[in-house]
Amino acid sequence: MIRAVTPTGPTPPLLRALTGDRPQTHPVWFMRQAGRSLPEYREVRRGTGMLESCLIPELAAEITLQPVRRHRVDAAIFFSDIMIPLKLAGVDVDIVAGVGPVIAEPVRTASDVDRLVAHRLGDTAMITEAIRLITTELATTPSGEAAWTPLIGFAGAPFTLAAYLVEGRPSRDHLAARSLMVADPAAWEKLMAWCADLSGAFLTLQVDAGASAVQLFDSWAGSLPLADYAARVAPWSRRALASVEGRVPRLHFGTGTGHLLEEMAKGTDALGIDYRTPLDEAAARLPGMPLQGNIDPARLLAGWDALESHAREVLDRGRAAPAHVVNLGHGVPPETDPAILTRLVELIHQP
Amino acid sequence: MIRAVTPTGPTPPLLRALTGDRPQTHPVWFMRQAGRSLPEYREVRRGTGMLESCLIPELAAEITLQPVRRHRVDAAIFFSDIMIPLKLAGVDVDIVAGVGPVIAEPVRTASDVDRLVAHRLGDTAMITEAIRLITTELATTPSGEAAWTPLIGFAGAPFTLAAYLVEGRPSRDHLAARSLMVADPAAWEKLMAWCADLSGAFLTLQVDAGASAVQLFDSWAGSLPLADYAARVAPWSRRALASVEGRVPRLHFGTGTGHLLEEMAKGTDALGIDYRTPLDEAAARLPGMPLQGNIDPARLLAGWDALESHAREVLDRGRAAPAHVVNLGHGVPPETDPAILTRLVELIHQP
Repeated sequence: MIRAVTPTGPTPPLLRALTGDRPQTHPVWFMRQAGRSLPEYREVRRGTGMLESCLIPELAAEITLQPVRRHRVDAAIFFSDIMIPLKLAGVDVDIVAGVGPVIAEPVRTASDVDRLVAHRLGDTAMITEAIRLITTELATTPSGEAAWTPLIGFAGAPFTLAAYLVEGRPSRDHLAARSLMVADPAAWEKLMAWCADLSGAFLTLQVDAGASAVQLFDSWAGSLPLADYAARVAPWSRRALASVEGRVPRLHFGTGTGHLLEEMAKGTDALGIDYRTPLDEAAARLPGMPLQGNIDPARLLAGWDALESHAREVLDRGRAAPAHVVNLGHGVPPETDPAILTRLVELIHQP
Repeated sequence: MIRAVTPTGPTPPLLRALTGDRPQTHPVWFMRQAGRSLPEYREVRRGTGMLESCLIPELAAEITLQPVRRHRVDAAIFFSDIMIPLKLAGVDVDIVAGVGPVIAEPVRTASDVDRLVAHRLGDTAMITEAIRLITTELATTPSGEAAWTPLIGFAGAPFTLAAYLVEGRPSRDHLAARSLMVADPAAWEKLMAWCADLSGAFLTLQVDAGASAVQLFDSWAGSLPLADYAARVAPWSRRALASVEGRVPRLHFGTGTGHLLEEMAKGTDALGIDYRTPLDEAAARLPGMPLQGNIDPARLLAGWDALESHAREVLDRGRAAPAHVVNLGHGVPPETDPAILTRLVELIHQP
């Protein structure tokens, strides 16, 4: 596979920060920047389901690019859904309004796992084509001192995939998945190996197509005690991240994971920090690790003055890390005024 | 108010442990022990709504007593719902199947708060009567060396009440509540003062009627960064707990609160620990504090062998605390086999 574009010239601020540098322009992007907070997103999504939208190259590209054009953020994040690799592997999954992802046949037993692991990623041409469209536009979209803006690839972490597969739907405590890992460790290992390889293949595909960085997102790891995470989950997340090691910088992130940070930092190039752990505390616990985060999304809804003072505090605390990519400590809430995000980017970009 | 029963003789193990002692019998009870895991509960609840069930004295008493009779646990927990004090104060709230508590008119503005705070607890005779029925039976139900078993009163913490009132329904991140606290601190204080006094009044009512301990449960505090919790939430939880200070031992508990433990421990007599923080770590952080917890509910679904070794580890780690009440680190899952809970109580009670 050849990259659709091979940008030259100065390295964009995001990629410098993710590899431990402190570029002149402080890089910033927002988790879920491509999404419901933007009227142009709601407009193009009208009448098209979530998973379907991710699989139409022109639509996925348009949605990915909208926040870059509007906010001048320093990265695009590939518009996808944690369920997409499962869908592309032929798992019967749908996003049900008011519920979230629903798996038609939850994976509860060793024989369910055996049936599941026969699945492989099928046709992925629409992903490659979407990324080609995105990186073509980003090749001429400046970011800081660079003439182009990077695209971050995205995949759900193995535990998050497994939790959905076992529970069959979103849950608060992931009891079915967390009991399976103890009740049948062999089935659990087989399930996690399959999920790790699927996540890894999906990240690799995006890097092959032109993504300049990746983020592995673990929605549900925060539900795990550290001992279970370290023994039964983290090795598989590292296996997924290893798939693109040395090719692009890798970000790892999960919400409510303050108790897991040291373990999550192994095998990644940079770590995203949830809004609940102050960045200077995270930096003290993770010497040498570039950090990403962690403006509290609730502050986006509290008026500009509250947001500005909070954002300045995050910048101050972030100075304790060797490098810092500004982001939220969780996704953009749908009810966010997009103008406040644009203003926030301008604040972060001020010299 | 005179207690319905005034038990005499040796103090039950639960009350000794909550006040820092190590009784001969290791006390154990389970959060949500009265509930859907029991067939006799499903039987008596048939056709009766959740909030309605809490307000029929004979039914609430029967449900509260069922797990004590079946499992021989060392405490009854008053069968109630976090929404009950709001309901008794005339707030229009209902439990919607598949959703959870829904507030008809969410509290979003300072004028909404002004309207809310005019509400006061109305008729509470059904609560007093339920507790009279419960404590009458418990007065002759042995627990360890004592001839009777204590009843623990229960209320939701002010932040949890406020989060429901502001969001109008369950949410993952409580963004509306967490932004209100910053956007309008005066309205937030007024709201939290009202919630704290309501929680405090509901705890006082239960102690007046015969409860021998109380637990303040903060379902949602784990969504808060420590700084916000300490400045804008914890003082109100302490105000609620102060309402019964010196009368009965007070327990304080919230899930996902590993980053808040030191702050939650102020103003309580014992602290419940979520399954994610090992008890010896909690004990090291909280010298002198009696602890409650923290068997992982997921282990209840993983077979007896996995549960037994986990429970023995929890007991071992709990020895690091000055006193330890065995419990789960969250509620009993509805799909739990009740026989495994009975067997677990027998294991904990072994000398």
